[in-house]
Amino acid sequence: MEKVFASIITIGDELLIGQVIDTNSAWIAQELNKIGISVKHRTAVGDVKEDIVEALDQESKRASIIIITGGLGPTADDITKPLLCEYFGGKMVMHQPTLAHVTNIFENVLKRPMIERNTLQAMVPDVCTVLLNEKGTAPGMLFEKEGKIYISLPGVPHEMKWIMQNHIIPLIPTKFSTGFIEHKTLLTFGIGESFLAEKIASTEAQLPAHIKLAYLPNSGMVRLRLSAFGFNQEALLASLSTHFEALKIAVGEYLVTDQDIPMETIVANLLKDQKATLSTAESCTGGYIAHLLTTSPGASKYFTGSVVCYDNRIKTSLLQVPEKVLLTEGAVSETTVKQMATAILNLMNTDYSIAVSGIMGPDGGTPEKAVGLVWIAVASKTAIHAKAFNLRYDRSRNIIMTATNALNMLRMLIVDKH
Amino acid sequence: MEKVFASIITIGDELLIGQVIDTNSAWIAQELNKIGISVKHRTAVGDVKEDIVEALDQESKRASIIIITGGLGPTADDITKPLLCEYFGGKMVMHQPTLAHVTNIFENVLKRPMIERNTLQAMVPDVCTVLLNEKGTAPGMLFEKEGKIYISLPGVPHEMKWIMQNHIIPLIPTKFSTGFIEHKTLLTFGIGESFLAEKIASTEAQLPAHIKLAYLPNSGMVRLRLSAFGFNQEALLASLSTHFEALKIAVGEYLVTDQDIPMETIVANLLKDQKATLSTAESCTGGYIAHLLTTSPGASKYFTGSVVCYDNRIKTSLLQVPEKVLLTEGAVSETTVKQMATAILNLMNTDYSIAVSGIMGPDGGTPEKAVGLVWIAVASKTAIHAKAFNLRYDRSRNIIMTATNALNMLRMLIVDKH
Repeated sequence: MEKVFASIITIGDELLIGQVIDTNSAWIAQELNKIGISVKHRTAVGDVKEDIVEALDQESKRASIIIITGGLGPTADDITKPLLCEYFGGKMVMHQPTLAHVTNIFENVLKRPMIERNTLQAMVPDVCTVLLNEKGTAPGMLFEKEGKIYISLPGVPHEMKWIMQNHIIPLIPTKFSTGFIEHKTLLTFGIGESFLAEKIASTEAQLPAHIKLAYLPNSGMVRLRLSAFGFNQEALLASLSTHFEALKIAVGEYLVTDQDIPMETIVANLLKDQKATLSTAESCTGGYIAHLLTTSPGASKYFTGSVVCYDNRIKTSLLQVPEKVLLTEGAVSETTVKQMATAILNLMNTDYSIAVSGIMGPDGGTPEKAVGLVWIAVASKTAIHAKAFNLRYDRSRNIIMTATNALNMLRMLIVDKH
Repeated sequence: MEKVFASIITIGDELLIGQVIDTNSAWIAQELNKIGISVKHRTAVGDVKEDIVEALDQESKRASIIIITGGLGPTADDITKPLLCEYFGGKMVMHQPTLAHVTNIFENVLKRPMIERNTLQAMVPDVCTVLLNEKGTAPGMLFEKEGKIYISLPGVPHEMKWIMQNHIIPLIPTKFSTGFIEHKTLLTFGIGESFLAEKIASTEAQLPAHIKLAYLPNSGMVRLRLSAFGFNQEALLASLSTHFEALKIAVGEYLVTDQDIPMETIVANLLKDQKATLSTAESCTGGYIAHLLTTSPGASKYFTGSVVCYDNRIKTSLLQVPEKVLLTEGAVSETTVKQMATAILNLMNTDYSIAVSGIMGPDGGTPEKAVGLVWIAVASKTAIHAKAFNLRYDRSRNIIMTATNALNMLRMLIVDKH
């Protein structure tokens, strides 16, 4: 048995001029990984016939599974479908089930008259297997040639995902002996990449050839990922676990979690375990912490609500920060965030609270309080802690770093490590 | 003169397994576009020597400017630097200015002892021009070979951006005659891609060969972009403007803006023009609308604050939604969102307000109120409007669509089109 590789080709000028960020490729790679397929290569080309053909030629040399996204919408900048038809030597025909599906969408969902352009979406090359797209009008297409499969998918993320999950992921194991890829990831906080590398050097040196280690720094945290590949799943999982446990010990006090989950999910899980509730009082983060906490389904179990007090008057009126404190110590001060944390805890009657106030930049800095200064407080019914940070990034990164640090401070309060 | 093309190579297993979304490539492409460089091709490879070499060989056939990101961190999964040294036939030497810079970061910023791994970051191939990285320890590198330039940049976004803006963007016009690329983008709301295509078909047919049209659907809106390329900037801008004005007329009542800005910026600009203020009362969006509105610097001019009332008790206690209304009509109802909009307007004393309440899924639906049902209200001191939407997507997309629709309703209220 050999390792099976995939390539991803994304088509569209919008990707090359940077107007759209490609989130599809990462999602596809994750899904393929779960069933033992490694993505060998990713390539992005514009809506240019020769470039697409060249990409098809090249990726078919690299991989057995070639996944193509984009270029299938109803409008004129899309050239992919006729090109694929020609590439695989077919002719365009009307696909009746797709036509019925598109007609149904227009009659019963959109409730709009259908135009010729919509009908054309049901035209497909006669050399492909059509992959019905329940979420939209552009069908997916599967081509097979010389033992390789080529899958063309619409670029709209939720349509692409539906076809992948319902057609492609079930199909691949019937065509290839895929082997197993297993990952284990842990999250560290409070240690830089180079120091972490020193700390775990001897553990890293003992990794066998089939297990790779990667450092993934992000928002002041470093994730460490072990990836193992093999054909005997049981033996693979056993050796991976052994080395992962050794890695956890080597990381020591910097370990936050041994799961591949973001900080907001760690906090959510701790709150759910305690059946505890949380509220936030946010100035500089403008609701971003609340947004992170409500991204996961079931957030109402632990998240009560938030007051975003962007204007200082709201700090006074809703969160009882005395005007005198704002005048003497300022909105970005220990006294202010502690009062905000206490006030929101009482106002929303929660078990825990987070409060943040800072200067995210690029404007708003003063000689005494520079851009990047943030005060964060976390409170429970019996304890309150506050800490200042000096962030050195741009506005959007400062907002993210503030949220991450605030959630980490709450985590430490909950697990009583403060 | 010929058009100058660039290619982007991103290096890192984390991109191929989908653990990280590549946002660097889009940003680089945008910046190159502004100075007349088209990105011809993008490719992503893992931390595998032969794959990186193959990518360098292939992209050097496609483009004159090859930009490589990633693979330069201080840890052991990085193999890029020695590989580039070998590829361009150099040997590794210590770069004293970089060593001084790294030492300074450790002594004065991080205030930590430096370890050998950090010193090694100042080792560079003797055949490159070093591009000092003010934002981090890994320097950028510029190689030149057969009239082409190769630029290696760290993958950390804010470091990569700093080197691009301070070294690469100023350098390129000194090496190449770049021509001009100009884009104009407009935003439509409330019309699908295929119907829009019908509506503007005759205008599209009149576009000259040097102006391309692209459809960019996103979150229920469709952006239309005209891209023009030429060497006479004045003539180029004149013809682009003519066709763009024609396109605006063809789009008609669906036009939201003729600038390439997101909906939250449109609303922010309208508020700033009127010197008006806004507050939000958010249930199902959990602070996401407030977050969008505070992403831009200067948001304190128009954004006062928000109450995130995720728990129904907060709707009653802070926003005076009567318990009886919650019991009889429910939290997701016209009466509830209108009361929320009125209450937050008064509570925060703003000129306008937005209120949303809905069922984002995947849980929480009932036979009467399905997942995806959202009520949105927008209010001013003299008017209030509410509307129900039935969204059909996953949770995170439903949150985004709710925010977009809410901001659009506010826009219509401000410009008095409601």
